[in-house]
Amino acid sequence: MELIREGSVTTPAGFVAGTAACNIKKPGLLDLALLYSQVDCAAAAVFTRSQVVAAPVIVDRETLSSNNERIRAVVANSGNANACTGLPGLNNTRQMQRAAASALDCEPGQVLVLSTGVIGVQLPMDKIAAGISEASSDLRQENGQLAARAIMTTDTHAKYLALKVELLGGIVTIGGMAKGAGMIHPNMATLLGVFTTDAAIAPDLLDQMLHTAVDQSFNCISIDGDTSTNDTVLLLANGSSSIPVADRESITKFQEALTSICIDLAKMIVRDGEGAGKFVEIQVSGAPDDAAAHTVATTIATSPLVKTAFAGSDANWGRILAAAGRAGIVFDQHQTALWIGVQAAGELQLVAQGTPLDYQEKDAAAIFAEPEFKVLLNLGAGQGAATMWTSDLTHEYVSINADYRT
Amino acid sequence: MELIREGSVTTPAGFVAGTAACNIKKPGLLDLALLYSQVDCAAAAVFTRSQVVAAPVIVDRETLSSNNERIRAVVANSGNANACTGLPGLNNTRQMQRAAASALDCEPGQVLVLSTGVIGVQLPMDKIAAGISEASSDLRQENGQLAARAIMTTDTHAKYLALKVELLGGIVTIGGMAKGAGMIHPNMATLLGVFTTDAAIAPDLLDQMLHTAVDQSFNCISIDGDTSTNDTVLLLANGSSSIPVADRESITKFQEALTSICIDLAKMIVRDGEGAGKFVEIQVSGAPDDAAAHTVATTIATSPLVKTAFAGSDANWGRILAAAGRAGIVFDQHQTALWIGVQAAGELQLVAQGTPLDYQEKDAAAIFAEPEFKVLLNLGAGQGAATMWTSDLTHEYVSINADYRT
Repeated sequence: MELIREGSVTTPAGFVAGTAACNIKKPGLLDLALLYSQVDCAAAAVFTRSQVVAAPVIVDRETLSSNNERIRAVVANSGNANACTGLPGLNNTRQMQRAAASALDCEPGQVLVLSTGVIGVQLPMDKIAAGISEASSDLRQENGQLAARAIMTTDTHAKYLALKVELLGGIVTIGGMAKGAGMIHPNMATLLGVFTTDAAIAPDLLDQMLHTAVDQSFNCISIDGDTSTNDTVLLLANGSSSIPVADRESITKFQEALTSICIDLAKMIVRDGEGAGKFVEIQVSGAPDDAAAHTVATTIATSPLVKTAFAGSDANWGRILAAAGRAGIVFDQHQTALWIGVQAAGELQLVAQGTPLDYQEKDAAAIFAEPEFKVLLNLGAGQGAATMWTSDLTHEYVSINADYRT
Repeated sequence: MELIREGSVTTPAGFVAGTAACNIKKPGLLDLALLYSQVDCAAAAVFTRSQVVAAPVIVDRETLSSNNERIRAVVANSGNANACTGLPGLNNTRQMQRAAASALDCEPGQVLVLSTGVIGVQLPMDKIAAGISEASSDLRQENGQLAARAIMTTDTHAKYLALKVELLGGIVTIGGMAKGAGMIHPNMATLLGVFTTDAAIAPDLLDQMLHTAVDQSFNCISIDGDTSTNDTVLLLANGSSSIPVADRESITKFQEALTSICIDLAKMIVRDGEGAGKFVEIQVSGAPDDAAAHTVATTIATSPLVKTAFAGSDANWGRILAAAGRAGIVFDQHQTALWIGVQAAGELQLVAQGTPLDYQEKDAAAIFAEPEFKVLLNLGAGQGAATMWTSDLTHEYVSINADYRT
């Protein structure tokens, strides 16, 4: 695998993008993106599991259920999520789909739609239409990074990446962009991710590989425990390289590469989490099974008390055990062990058999003062394991979210 | 029912209390309380459901399982939770129980123990012993309010209350005290509550009535979604009034009074939540059943995005629907309706059939700017209903918890 840091969704062959600033966000900020493939794509998606879903999620599900092999484009806007907008909102998404199809000379059923931003406000359709028109007039391979910028909300920087991977038939490229920052949580939160590849992959296989990759990446991150109405990760494969992913070895390698780029973008989202000052890896082992480990890791990663302790560089590890204890998973507290550590350096054990060890408080505080560190909890109740990536809970998080709409 | 605002756990006949400042907290702050009944009490308790429980929870469960009709005393300390302290912690709780029994001239098995404060640090047993000795030397009826002060951690004021209720046999009194502030959540969080009554009640009935009262009070409040290792609510009935609670009418009236005093103290805890600036009532109706409504109300009440919107007086109601959507309860978003309002004034409907209505933003903002308001969500999916009381998520919450141990 070769990482291309400046790569994006238009790095794989056959993809181009266009953007526009159409005043949904503040004047001058890019808020609309078109991604276009010169040939038909196989397409797969993972959506939010919320009961309250935005209009684009409803429409994309419909679209993909009748066509997952002839997708040509994605139209995305930021600044307005088109969520909790009822039937008018659904009509607006369909209108957005038709406008993009018309501008790109394809069918509405070949266009997927993404929206992110404020909830409960109808889309300004005149601005959207103007934006689509503008973006479609300048579709270029060079615009991939700008597309990543156009889907940002409270993100402080655009998130994009590409990588090349050598398969049996030759080298294929995977590109990706994502936005996140707030509401990041398992089941994906206000997270939009778009991945492209020039490999040739059958739709069913594509779907399976995307789900596997998302489970090990975007579903393992948490900023505030809130999940969103709009979460969507898309993967388009246009086959422009003419290199198939069908044999076992190629499937394994492609899956590895796809999961890897998803993890990289997921970690970028946590590092850019609203008000996040720290990046913390939570490893839970010794759980009854992997799902139980994931539940415990999630409870720790979303605990306000744990996250404020991270923010305060306070190695108040009792809060970590307390969070584990309320996760709803059965274990014996007197079998637990806890370590903390920073990458490269060794780990410091704080707890054995549920009892604090005789460590130096200053050593523990020094680890919690690092911008990145790990927490390792063994429950002593089995072989299940899981990892979560999370951030701290800071004053800035409160500021951003108390004043989001003002 | 007659409310006695200055009443406390020593208002019912036959109860006395003593306190001490023994330097577990900062010098001069009360941090140890003894509650003593001059005659044997029937006793009931509700404990945390966490898998990680503090030593006093383990010991109190043992004590009550062999004796729930001859309890004489409660010894409580603040400043140290004696949680995550392993076997040494268990031995310390037993030693605390023995020391109190010795000072009060009763058996260790007649003493219940409560601890609250920092997790993961062994109790300073010399200080505890000195505190028990001091507190036991000045047991008085007048010390009930001081006992409430001695169990405070990050609480800004002591919480106590009593009420008189007329039963068939005459008037009985119920007194109570509680501490909370941080980690408040259903399943009770770092919440200690002690209730006393001079009514005569059989232990099994007492247990049943306490569970009913807690389900409708302490399990309906949330400050930060974190539950604790130490949560305990105790109820002692010493029968000093010689008035029995056994006939149906008396049981109904006593239950009503007990639930009422529990709700009053639970609301005091939310109002005094760490950094809390607002008190918000979340009413969920139209759920498939009451349990589902409770789940949805809890998810809303613990959502950081909802709670920061409360803090910012931002009527960003989409976050409320988004939180409901991820609660894991099935409903049709296009059947939902949402109102907000302040007590006494009418309600403002924001959403009907999942679609925003044409209300004035300034009217919605005015309600969210109030120190107390209500949110009413109807899911349109059944007859289930539930109410939660919660607070906002403020800068001060982060400050308190990032620096708790420093």
